[in-house]
Amino acid sequence: MAERWGAGTVTFSARPRVLGHAAVGGKKESEGPLAAEFDKLFADDTLGEDTWEQAESRLVTEAFSAALEKAGVDAAELHAVFAGDLLNQCIASTFGLREFSLPFMGQFGACSTMAQTLLAAAVFVDGGAADVCAAVTSSHFCTAERQFRFPLEYGGQRTPTSQWTATAAGAAIVGLGGRGARIADGCIGRVVDLGVTDMNNMGAAMAPAAADTLARYFRDTGTTPDDYERIVTGDLSAVGGALLRNLLKKEGFDLGDRYTDCGLLLYDRKTQDVHAGGSGCGCSAGVLCGHLLNRFDRSELSDFLFVGTGALMSPTSCQQGESIPAVAHLVHFVRD
Amino acid sequence: MAERWGAGTVTFSARPRVLGHAAVGGKKESEGPLAAEFDKLFADDTLGEDTWEQAESRLVTEAFSAALEKAGVDAAELHAVFAGDLLNQCIASTFGLREFSLPFMGQFGACSTMAQTLLAAAVFVDGGAADVCAAVTSSHFCTAERQFRFPLEYGGQRTPTSQWTATAAGAAIVGLGGRGARIADGCIGRVVDLGVTDMNNMGAAMAPAAADTLARYFRDTGTTPDDYERIVTGDLSAVGGALLRNLLKKEGFDLGDRYTDCGLLLYDRKTQDVHAGGSGCGCSAGVLCGHLLNRFDRSELSDFLFVGTGALMSPTSCQQGESIPAVAHLVHFVRD
Repeated sequence: MAERWGAGTVTFSARPRVLGHAAVGGKKESEGPLAAEFDKLFADDTLGEDTWEQAESRLVTEAFSAALEKAGVDAAELHAVFAGDLLNQCIASTFGLREFSLPFMGQFGACSTMAQTLLAAAVFVDGGAADVCAAVTSSHFCTAERQFRFPLEYGGQRTPTSQWTATAAGAAIVGLGGRGARIADGCIGRVVDLGVTDMNNMGAAMAPAAADTLARYFRDTGTTPDDYERIVTGDLSAVGGALLRNLLKKEGFDLGDRYTDCGLLLYDRKTQDVHAGGSGCGCSAGVLCGHLLNRFDRSELSDFLFVGTGALMSPTSCQQGESIPAVAHLVHFVRD
Repeated sequence: MAERWGAGTVTFSARPRVLGHAAVGGKKESEGPLAAEFDKLFADDTLGEDTWEQAESRLVTEAFSAALEKAGVDAAELHAVFAGDLLNQCIASTFGLREFSLPFMGQFGACSTMAQTLLAAAVFVDGGAADVCAAVTSSHFCTAERQFRFPLEYGGQRTPTSQWTATAAGAAIVGLGGRGARIADGCIGRVVDLGVTDMNNMGAAMAPAAADTLARYFRDTGTTPDDYERIVTGDLSAVGGALLRNLLKKEGFDLGDRYTDCGLLLYDRKTQDVHAGGSGCGCSAGVLCGHLLNRFDRSELSDFLFVGTGALMSPTSCQQGESIPAVAHLVHFVRD
């Protein structure tokens, strides 16, 4: 049974854990500082498929299959799969997981999806609704550009605050037993909108949501940033990360040296031309299900907060002059 | 704690219930046979907003607010909101619920969303992750037409198998206590794709998913259609409903007189020019949170299966020649 510490802040008593995890990536990810942390890297971003969308679905299939294998779990043993992505109607997830014919609940949290699917999986396992679940998400630079921005062929210039959508997918199998990272507790994000309208500055749009979730979580649990080894946001990158630090300082919380962001870890900003850093569902999913959980498995990390961050606009809402609402979901991983 | 009867088939021991429910609709819904069952009807489908998308968000706000009021629950008491819709990046839900600043988990199940959000809410309440949750969804004829089909101004002819996307929203507040409809158990749908590619025949694309869920549910629970007063699918309408009957007959289950579909209940096909019937997230949400749960409250209905049906394609996937995968989630309501 779960116990609540506050609205949306939940602790899990049945001790759900990550039974297996995997990350796959594309060409740029293979050239970045975390290349060695991926289970599979594809030098050709089409993955041999006919369309970018099919390529993204393949990333989903590959990450999911690898996570199952590493967990030693057959697909047929899963009681629920939680998955979603940035594409309209979440087709990367649906088509990428279609062949497995599993109980499926599509999730939409934009780039916060990895955290959201993990929270959903933990709640289902903790409450007995499922013994084993999967949490899966993806993004692809080329599908995201053509859907949210410009056709690739247009070759538009990118602003300094813009981020680079990761071509990557991550998957985690969540269940009971074993010695994997335990999902101790978490916090469901609220939709926060401070009126940012610049689609090329998603970090700024998402920082207030991350600050809201972290501040609520610290207060609900009676903890401070010092109580955690690492605090890692999903894809605030350089601009949003600095804003988050300031917003939390005003709330009395100093993130200090323990704070970083998946968008800053995934690429080398000096040499990889990603401007403010990485973004996309696959950014936080790839870094968590590769790098961070690998570090956990290597005993380099024992207790950390993973805060998925998502911007909830659509091209239509932006064209209609709407500001960009955002959400951030938090998952607390521990060793014990 | 939940107990599983099979992969995806879950029964709830903590006895989650509908504490309040509400449905709102537009002009065509106000002219249909269920007009009297809506909490609010809008003669002007813009609801006074500047865009169709903003109008759909208003439907969400109105249904959610009315359900809270009828449940006697303050928005601030909610521990989680599950919502989603058909629009790209689910903006109807996000923007419609943004002002309430609540823990929010976006769901994407296409037109099955009402059932999916109810299942998620029931699992969260049952497992103690939340005391009170909301399940909300919507659709709007004009937003759906321009996103999935043609600009309204084009005035394209519709095929006989096509359905009419409802302009409606539904919301249900789920928690413990009271005398509302109890969510006894449910079944998470699997992604099923039998290769249908006709975007104007969604009923045919979704019928196999509904058959898969119902057959699994009957087998997992050891029941037959005769064990339920009513079995109501979300939006298979005339074409898909007939297919569902046939598919289940082959599996040894006769739906008989107890079967109907929200898309057939919402409109009068003889006079309202809706072709095969109604569809959209708002179709099943409006009929459930209006008509069906009203009938429950009037003691006209005590034990029924609600099977939300969703087609998981996007315009992009269809343009790329993909077939249409579908999903169907089941919720079992009882009186006790």
